[in-house]
Amino acid sequence: MDGRFLIAGERIATGETFEGYDPAAGANIAPAFEVSREADVARACEAAAAAFDVFRETSPEDRAVFLETIASEIEALGDALIERAVLESGLPPARLTGERGRTTGQLRLFASVLRAGRFAGVVLDSPMPERQPLPRSDLRQRRIAVGPVAVFGASNFPLAFSVAGGDTASALAAGCPVVVKAHPAHPGTSLLAAQAIDAAVAKCGLPRGVFSLMQGPANELGAALVRHPAIKAVGFTGSRAGGLALVSLAQARPEPIPVYAEMSSVNPVLLFPAALANRAEALGAGFVASLTMGSGQFCTNPGLVIGIDGPDLDRFVAAAAQALEQAQPQVMLTAGIHGAYSTGVETLAGHDGVELVARGVAATACNCGQAALFSTSAAALAANPALAHEVFGASSVVIRAKDWGEVAALLETLEGQLTATLQIDADDVEAARPLLPILERKAGRILANGWPTGVEVSHAMVHGGPYPATSDPRSTSVGSAAIERYLRPICYQDLPQALLPQAVRDGNPQRLPRLVDGAFE
Amino acid sequence: MDGRFLIAGERIATGETFEGYDPAAGANIAPAFEVSREADVARACEAAAAAFDVFRETSPEDRAVFLETIASEIEALGDALIERAVLESGLPPARLTGERGRTTGQLRLFASVLRAGRFAGVVLDSPMPERQPLPRSDLRQRRIAVGPVAVFGASNFPLAFSVAGGDTASALAAGCPVVVKAHPAHPGTSLLAAQAIDAAVAKCGLPRGVFSLMQGPANELGAALVRHPAIKAVGFTGSRAGGLALVSLAQARPEPIPVYAEMSSVNPVLLFPAALANRAEALGAGFVASLTMGSGQFCTNPGLVIGIDGPDLDRFVAAAAQALEQAQPQVMLTAGIHGAYSTGVETLAGHDGVELVARGVAATACNCGQAALFSTSAAALAANPALAHEVFGASSVVIRAKDWGEVAALLETLEGQLTATLQIDADDVEAARPLLPILERKAGRILANGWPTGVEVSHAMVHGGPYPATSDPRSTSVGSAAIERYLRPICYQDLPQALLPQAVRDGNPQRLPRLVDGAFE
Repeated sequence: MDGRFLIAGERIATGETFEGYDPAAGANIAPAFEVSREADVARACEAAAAAFDVFRETSPEDRAVFLETIASEIEALGDALIERAVLESGLPPARLTGERGRTTGQLRLFASVLRAGRFAGVVLDSPMPERQPLPRSDLRQRRIAVGPVAVFGASNFPLAFSVAGGDTASALAAGCPVVVKAHPAHPGTSLLAAQAIDAAVAKCGLPRGVFSLMQGPANELGAALVRHPAIKAVGFTGSRAGGLALVSLAQARPEPIPVYAEMSSVNPVLLFPAALANRAEALGAGFVASLTMGSGQFCTNPGLVIGIDGPDLDRFVAAAAQALEQAQPQVMLTAGIHGAYSTGVETLAGHDGVELVARGVAATACNCGQAALFSTSAAALAANPALAHEVFGASSVVIRAKDWGEVAALLETLEGQLTATLQIDADDVEAARPLLPILERKAGRILANGWPTGVEVSHAMVHGGPYPATSDPRSTSVGSAAIERYLRPICYQDLPQALLPQAVRDGNPQRLPRLVDGAFE
Repeated sequence: MDGRFLIAGERIATGETFEGYDPAAGANIAPAFEVSREADVARACEAAAAAFDVFRETSPEDRAVFLETIASEIEALGDALIERAVLESGLPPARLTGERGRTTGQLRLFASVLRAGRFAGVVLDSPMPERQPLPRSDLRQRRIAVGPVAVFGASNFPLAFSVAGGDTASALAAGCPVVVKAHPAHPGTSLLAAQAIDAAVAKCGLPRGVFSLMQGPANELGAALVRHPAIKAVGFTGSRAGGLALVSLAQARPEPIPVYAEMSSVNPVLLFPAALANRAEALGAGFVASLTMGSGQFCTNPGLVIGIDGPDLDRFVAAAAQALEQAQPQVMLTAGIHGAYSTGVETLAGHDGVELVARGVAATACNCGQAALFSTSAAALAANPALAHEVFGASSVVIRAKDWGEVAALLETLEGQLTATLQIDADDVEAARPLLPILERKAGRILANGWPTGVEVSHAMVHGGPYPATSDPRSTSVGSAAIERYLRPICYQDLPQALLPQAVRDGNPQRLPRLVDGAFE
């Protein structure tokens, strides 16, 4: 593997390098990767800007083929991609193989979104030349790409939320060139994915500036990217501190730009009485399976479980404790994440009124997360909202409430969430009903009788939610609606056919769905 | 008229008052209006929050009837509304009568948007219980109202962009309670419109907290409104300084919220050679009619005209000068706007390389704007971008360029705009073509052979554009798509029918258009 990064098809060396890290071995790994400098960011952004007008006006079919070609190029990387990702992330091969399928699947989903054509948002209002007192013009609306997009790779999905992940797929689908700031935890995986994208750019005859990859460990690299005037939107998945820093940078620009940052969530799970009575043990085991999967390194990890105090909740806690105590330690993504997890667990354990329910099997290897389950009262949480702050990893807190009134009050105090989960049986429906409006105000997805950690890539998915779950609850980072982030509407009034874009011309040459005078054709 | 403001149906007096102002007479006018305090803001916002869960779940049909009832109540105000608006704005009765029609028309347009049902964004993905390796859940997406919205009335449309204007109509349509901060330039007009809305709230049996009106001259009142935690989005039309102040306040909240601020635009007009050769005189006259209408107090006012230097451009300038010199002075909206206009014109006149082409008829009455037309070179503008900053009122600058290459370079340096206008004949199409991509990046609406000052209220309209035309180019403040601002998506996964909202239940009881497994039903 050659450690040079990529600007518009050109491989770049700067002489300054950094290395990847194998968290399972606790050691750096070859090769050395060249570090991108601010001047490289500028070159990549300028190349993206130069490619923009051509790329955004490629036909939906051409962009669909481009996305499918990226998917094929990723598959063509074969085992090398999985092996490198395993090495750099500590995640098991089966998980990463599945994640690769998710990555190529969402590229192909966006190809289908392009072919369906609704993304273009074509709306036509017919002229009314005879209208009194004033005629109505010929008005044609479509949506165009916002401009070059900066994408920040996430550490916890080195494929599906990284270089060729959802943000890149949706931005490219929209017609936005992409400059990726790779996550420094997986530089080799990032470079392989970048080479696949660049190969697809070349094969499809697109301007090479459509894609560039920046590499380096310093936050300043990402800051330079967000500050560059050519960048018109930002996609980010990561920590709250990181996301908020990017939002601040983006707002301080001479031209502020939107940042879609998916940040922090504890994903409350509500245990209702009939469900608890009927299946407390199964719920406890299912909860721990969701909590400890992937060492708990999911933004949808169930970090808060709420139930009414009593014997059935005791059964749930006992079953969860039993399962958790058998949870094997799993290597975490980076030494930094492992350290933050350990600190977070210690801090939780140190709070007054917080009881340690169980720990997982203690780690003997390096960077391994030891699962942790706590319990406290709703009153303690009300007194200290920090108990409901995310500890990234397999850590969760069971909240014992007196009654549903106390739960409702507690939910009102929670910050915005990606998900809220109901464990309900038929007899719980009436108890759950009054909580639904609160949950709708607090979360992007409400699910029943499952666990929040699975996020389907589909049309109806919402992976988003009120602040601080995300910086912008009007969109989703998973599923086909993610393309909306990178589009803006534009209206053409009385333009001659020859100057109109294909999307809104008479005869509908791109065969797009069109809303004409308020009704779909 | 009783000068008390309105909180959730209750008329409030605080003892502190301010008065309206008749700009034509240059004198304050009775009655005294009570000034809202921060505690009133809090009460109004809390009432809005308390009304939110009920109001957002009213059926689309019920909200449609509510919007239509507001329109009827506004019409029932009769001449009193027009007379008060004339007095407070200096605008002529015919204009305000037309604006009332626009106001009631857009309320009824949003009623039709609700009945069409696309706003609800219903997307269903069918469950796949047998899918390998994992089953797919039942996923149902809809859009819900974001929460209580703060609306700031604009001075220049005392009806259509004010208390019952587009922001209020679209927010109420979405299901958001609204707290309006009235523009202090027309407190009486504002109160009349507010009473109409409140009467509709009562007639429709809605929670009275759905609407409140705050009155007062201090910026701090609006700041308190934007800072209140119950407020989840802001609609604003006004100055760049005002809009940016609200954006800063909104970003600095513990929970940042979106601000839809429509701010400043000079709306470039490009004069192409064949059009100039064929109709320079008609273009000059048409331009001045657009420029001076309503004393130029439109955000779509043509403040920048660009052509290739030469005899045909001279003809245009001569015709424009002749028309402008006959333009009668018209009273401006406020003494402050008149002062800022006079200062802006003086500042423009003082720039090196800027030539005064013509002034309108000098004013003899108070607060009257005297139209102004300047000319300069593209090189001078390139050297001093401030020449292309908005002077709110009937002031415009003609830019003489050497060639289309220079025009393209100039357009690239322009800030974001609401509109861009092409004056083109058939022979101009090829000259215009290479500029279209630049204009698409710069503006929200591109029009040909008209003038930008007319903004149709319809489905395809985009009244928006890149910063600083607006703070958020992903939406429009005019037309049916404005409802999108105040909605966010939410996904329900495997929820029992009894807990699902009507919008996504089996059998489609609200008869909404639904995207099922990627295709419209």
